[in-house]
Parts: sequence; structure tokens; C-alpha cells
Amino acid sequence: MTRVNENYGKLQAGYLFPEIARRVGAFSVANPDAKIIRLGIGDVTLPLAPAIVEALRAAADEMGRETGVHGYGPENGYDFLIEAICEHDYRARGIEIATNEVFVSDGSKQDSGNIQEIFDTDSRIAVTDPSYPVYVDTNVMAGRTGNANSDGAYEGILYLPATEANGFAPPPPEQSVDLVYLCSPNNPTGSVASRENLTTWVRWARQNDSVLIFDAAYDAFIQDDDLPHSIYEIDGARECAIEMRSYSKRAGFTGVRCAYTVVPRQLEGTTSRGERVCLADLWSRRQATKFNSVPYPVQRAAAAVYSPEGRKQTGEQVAYYMANAARIRDGLGAAGFTLFGGEHAPYIWMRTPDGLSSWECFDRLLEAAHVVATPGAGFGAAGEGYIRISAFNSRENVEAAIGRIRDAFGD
Amino acid sequence: MTRVNENYGKLQAGYLFPEIARRVGAFSVANPDAKIIRLGIGDVTLPLAPAIVEALRAAADEMGRETGVHGYGPENGYDFLIEAICEHDYRARGIEIATNEVFVSDGSKQDSGNIQEIFDTDSRIAVTDPSYPVYVDTNVMAGRTGNANSDGAYEGILYLPATEANGFAPPPPEQSVDLVYLCSPNNPTGSVASRENLTTWVRWARQNDSVLIFDAAYDAFIQDDDLPHSIYEIDGARECAIEMRSYSKRAGFTGVRCAYTVVPRQLEGTTSRGERVCLADLWSRRQATKFNSVPYPVQRAAAAVYSPEGRKQTGEQVAYYMANAARIRDGLGAAGFTLFGGEHAPYIWMRTPDGLSSWECFDRLLEAAHVVATPGAGFGAAGEGYIRISAFNSRENVEAAIGRIRDAFGD
Repeated sequence: MTRVNENYGKLQAGYLFPEIARRVGAFSVANPDAKIIRLGIGDVTLPLAPAIVEALRAAADEMGRETGVHGYGPENGYDFLIEAICEHDYRARGIEIATNEVFVSDGSKQDSGNIQEIFDTDSRIAVTDPSYPVYVDTNVMAGRTGNANSDGAYEGILYLPATEANGFAPPPPEQSVDLVYLCSPNNPTGSVASRENLTTWVRWARQNDSVLIFDAAYDAFIQDDDLPHSIYEIDGARECAIEMRSYSKRAGFTGVRCAYTVVPRQLEGTTSRGERVCLADLWSRRQATKFNSVPYPVQRAAAAVYSPEGRKQTGEQVAYYMANAARIRDGLGAAGFTLFGGEHAPYIWMRTPDGLSSWECFDRLLEAAHVVATPGAGFGAAGEGYIRISAFNSRENVEAAIGRIRDAFGD
Repeated sequence: MTRVNENYGKLQAGYLFPEIARRVGAFSVANPDAKIIRLGIGDVTLPLAPAIVEALRAAADEMGRETGVHGYGPENGYDFLIEAICEHDYRARGIEIATNEVFVSDGSKQDSGNIQEIFDTDSRIAVTDPSYPVYVDTNVMAGRTGNANSDGAYEGILYLPATEANGFAPPPPEQSVDLVYLCSPNNPTGSVASRENLTTWVRWARQNDSVLIFDAAYDAFIQDDDLPHSIYEIDGARECAIEMRSYSKRAGFTGVRCAYTVVPRQLEGTTSRGERVCLADLWSRRQATKFNSVPYPVQRAAAAVYSPEGRKQTGEQVAYYMANAARIRDGLGAAGFTLFGGEHAPYIWMRTPDGLSSWECFDRLLEAAHVVATPGAGFGAAGEGYIRISAFNSRENVEAAIGRIRDAFGD
């Protein structure tokens, strides 16, 4: 009988968000009248900005005309989008990224999950802990780990704890590893990497011939212009870092699907015979063989994010969510909860009250406050004792959730 | 230094279609006045049908309203689309497929490339030869093969030649293999599998505990209602076959991106300890971890393919392309070329004249007729000596191409 990929059997029960959906679903069935407020998965709640809607409509109309047929697009994305990315996301901050270094995709989840395919199966992986589960799970599925221990930590992965003591910004490890996944602004801790922290990482990566996979999906939420939006603001990063960006949160694209990955031409890996290989060429080959680019209307919609109206409208959406984050910080902080993040990211990282475990706190919030948050332990062992609260909801719901959480914990 | 996936180094120079694009690009630069007619890559040329355009527009409008926000969708697709698939693509032909057996995706290229991930790295693979390059290349990249020989055939893959002698319908092999990729209507040969042929395959797969990966991306082009559109029309296929369908050619979605894969709940693989594993569960886990579903407007557009207007309009588009195929068959057949396919598929498989190799014929067509076709050898060693002509173009261009090809070969 055909053998399956047994690495899947090592995965912990359910990917985090489906498990949350399962528990919330069961609670909803048992409590059909409960008005649940979702501050869990971190999905956008505002409608698409008018400039985005108009771009989608115009592209649909165009594709319906004989002169506007758009079939298979360029493999790595249309020039109109890639050039806007190079101009607005990079050149505007003093960074030169060439158009053949940008690879448009349907999501940073996909890119951060697929990027490991271009590396050797024996590559040694490090992740900050807690981290977005896709980094670890895709390496488990690819066979780069052993089994998980009782904390959910996989043998063969180096976990770098992000703790209150290190300001949720772990330093590089002492041992050498091949790939390190970094994320700033961070999901789930809501922290943001300083220029000094990233400089330390880049220097370490170059000394150790390591590759950094820098997930900047939340860069639009950075409020301080002096903080780095891109790892390429750090000297030497072009020789050691791959960067990912997304329109999901920045422009409400979770249901529209567009993102991109930058692989600088200087970035190289090696074969077992010591030949140097351009990683951008490998990623290009991977995408050309296993992907077929992003819908034309979606690429037009992404390009509209950079128009004057698009920038204004999506900027207002980001500001709305960040005002939510401030309310959560203020409202729960005043009630004595210990909170982190939420200043340059749409996530607040809350220490669980009463010594509860993450999942106990999740269940208590669901049952007593009818609020969905995300258990920190779902992002890694070092997330135990924390819960992630998302700022993606209406102001009204955020205010209501703050009150309910305060009531549920009896202050 | 970080090691790369060295299996990429085994891949032949360039994925087929980028290589064609490169040669055509070079020719265009050298001959800027040449009016090139593209019958190569098989991309649609008609504008999107009005029902599709309207669905895209309506979904964009909806997403711009507070009551119409659609963020992350259900992992495997919206019910409205999955239910339409079950009803129109299956129940209408007497097949029961459950909604939890359908997995909506952004393309059959992706699905047929990614499906191998859920199987063991040591799985033995068979492909019909010639075949869509993605089947082979993704297994090469995953490390299931050795190097390619001078014919481009990889060590460790079993090639089943589709020849004039077997009517381009190779029978199952004598030895046991784990996974077999089948495609009907066939890309590139334009042939279609008979009920008897598929019955033989299903019986063989069940006897040998093999899994069939049945790519039916072109099913809408079948003109004879008695021919099987789905492998599930064959008794026992639910226990041995995965099926893929696409909207790309059927409804002009090459630039819109939607497809789906069916994995029946009965279909199982095994672990090394002999435990049986439901393949639908593995695929669901793969997709939940490495994919984030298809844009909401695109799923609405795909559902519109099943509306009365959508069926009528896309049916007319298919008929238009099939009339092109008939012209090519008639026009080149009358001129003495030896042709196959094109009756239930948008591809004509032409034996190269004058004993030319496939790429020689490609170059001759490009240089003398300014027509782009696809070299058969690009699809596998058994494709040598053939060239694939696509019916996707305007009637005017098809007629012109026929004349030019006749002229170029001097009859």
C-alpha cells in the first residue's frame, strides 16, 4: 500500500487556529445566545477600502473586454505591482531592491511555509519562541525534526525564548544554525525589533553563514518612523536575509490574498561540493514550477494600495486598529493586567492572570467573557502563561470585550 | 554556509514554458516586425464571460460594505462553491462526492505539484510519457529521483510511453508503483481516456494498492457525453483515486486562478508500521498549514460558472476553442500533416514533418511561420518527434497560422 509522509504524524493535534475554531464552535452550539467577540485569529473586520474595491471592479471589467484579456501573468508578478513595491516599500526608505528580487505571491503564510523547500533537508532551524506556527510545522512536515516533547517542542529545532527578561527580543544563539525565522513586528508578542537588535542578527548571520527569514507581514503597524520596517535597512542584510511582506493586515487583504517575498541576488547557499547557488534562482524555479502567480484583479488591487487614495484609506484602517490596541492596553492595563506589545503591532501579549495556563485562560475568556483570544502556548512552549489579544475588531466590540474581560476576572 | 536543496540541480534547463518564452523573446527582439501567433502555452484568449465579470464586480462591491466583509475564508473553500461543484460536476453525472472531499485551490498546477508532499519520499512514481512537466519536476525537487539521462528521463521514475501504437493510452505497468499520474483529456497529446482504459487502471490500482492522481483539468472539452468526465464514474475509483479539476480553460480563469481537488474519504495510505491513514486528512492538514484558500471574489466567480448564464457563456467559449481545434485538424490534415487529438481536448498533437526533432520543428515554426507551438520533447522523451498545437486563439489567428504552417513546410 502507498506509504504516506509520516512526518505529518509528528504534528501536534490540529493547527492552532482550526483547534480554536473547534472549541469556539462547540461553545456556540452549547450557548447559541452568547454574543461572542473574536479577538483571536487576527482577521480584519473593516470593509475593503474604496480604492481597492474600485481597482478590483476595474480589473474585472477590463478582463471582460477583448482588449483587456489577461491570462497567465508573469511568473513573479506584473511589473506594475513590482515597480510600486520597489518604489514605495523600499526606495522611499532608502533601500534599493531590484525588480527581479521581488516575488509576488498569494500570502506570507504560503511564502514562509514554502521557503524551506529550497534548503537542504538536513538544514538546522532556529525559531524565536513563541512564533507563528507555520515556521515550525512546515519544517516538521519536511522531515527536519524529530518528535515533539510534552511542551510541544520538536527535537532538532533550536528554540530561542522571547521573554519578559529579554524584552521579547532574543539574541542570536551561540551555536551555528542554517536558517533562522524572525518576525517583526512580532506575531504573537506584538513586540518590534530595534535597529540594534536587527544589526546584531545580521552581523551574526554573516559571521555564521546563516540565512535569516524575516517576516515583516505587520510592518505597516510600526508607529515610530525610526524603527526599521525592513531588514534591508541594516547594512549587510542583502547578503543574509530573505524578507516577506503582506497586504493582508495592512490593506484588509485576508480574503483577497496578496503578499510578496524579496530574495536579494547576492544571497547564496551552497551545495555539498561547495558550489555557491543563488537563492533567488532557486526560489524563482520553485515558484515557476509549483505556483501560477496571483489573479490579475488582485495584483491591480494590491497596486492600488500605493495610490494616493489607497495609501490614505489603508493608513486610516491601520490607525483604526492601532487605536483599538491602545484602548486594550489602557483598559486592561488600568485593571491591573500585565500587557506587552500593541504599540507597533496589532497584537497585545497578555500575561495570564491567576497563574492560569494559556488554554485555561482561553477557556475562561470564552466561557465567562464570551471573548476569543489566542493561547500563547499555541505559538510555542515559551508562550505558555500568555494569551494574544488581537486589535482587529470594531471599536464597540473592543470596548465591550475590555469590560467583559475585567468582569470575568473579578476586579 | 547554508546548504541548498540539491535536487533542484537535477532539473533540466528551465521549466518548459519559460524556455519557450525565452526563445520567443529573443526572436521578437531580432524580428520586431514579425506578427507572432501563439499556439504554444495554451492560454485562453477570449475575454471573461459576462457572468464571471459580474460575479467579480459584485463580490468586490460586497467586500466594500460593512455587512459584506470577507476575511480569511473556510480553509477548503466556501460552501456555496463546494456545493455547486458537488451538484453540477458530480451529482449531475450520477456521482456522489461529499462536501468534505472537495478542496478548492488556486490551480491544478499547484495541486498536482503539491499532492506528492503527503506521500513518502521513497514512493515509486509512474507518469505517462509525454506528460505535464509539473508531475515529474515536483517529484525531482522532492528528491524522489536520480539524475536525468540524455533523453531527459529521470532515474527512479517509471515512464509509460503514450504512442501511436497504443492510441496514446498506455496500459498499467507490470511492476507495482505507488503513485501514477494520469491526465484525461490529455495534455499534451489531446487524447481522451475511454471508460475501458480507466476501468483497467482502477482495477490495477486496487490490485496493487496504488494511488492514481487523475488530472481532469480539461474535462469540459469532452464532446461525447458517454466518455468519462470523472474517474469516479468508474466503480472502485473512490478507493484509489484523487481527482483534479480547474476553471482555467473551461471558463477562462488562467488569470483568475481557481481549481479544486477531490480526495475521497475512503482513500488511504499506510505508515511504515502498517497503520492506515486517511489521505483526505493529510491533504486537509497540508492545505491548512501551507495555503490560505482562494480570494472570495474568485470563489464567487467560480460559482458563477455554474449559473445558467455562466454555463451557457462558458460553454460557448469552449465550443469556440473546439471549433478552432477542428479547423486545425482539417486544415493541416488536408495538407498531409499527421495529427492526433483535438476532438475532446483543445490540443492537437502533430507528428513533426521531415523527421525534425521537436525543438527543430519549434524553431522552424517560429522562424518560418512566426507561429509558436510547444515541442513535444518538452513533455518527456516519448514526446520527441511531436509538437503540440493549442486551439486557444482567435479564429482569425488560427486560420492564418494554418496557412503559414502549410507555407513554411512547402506543400
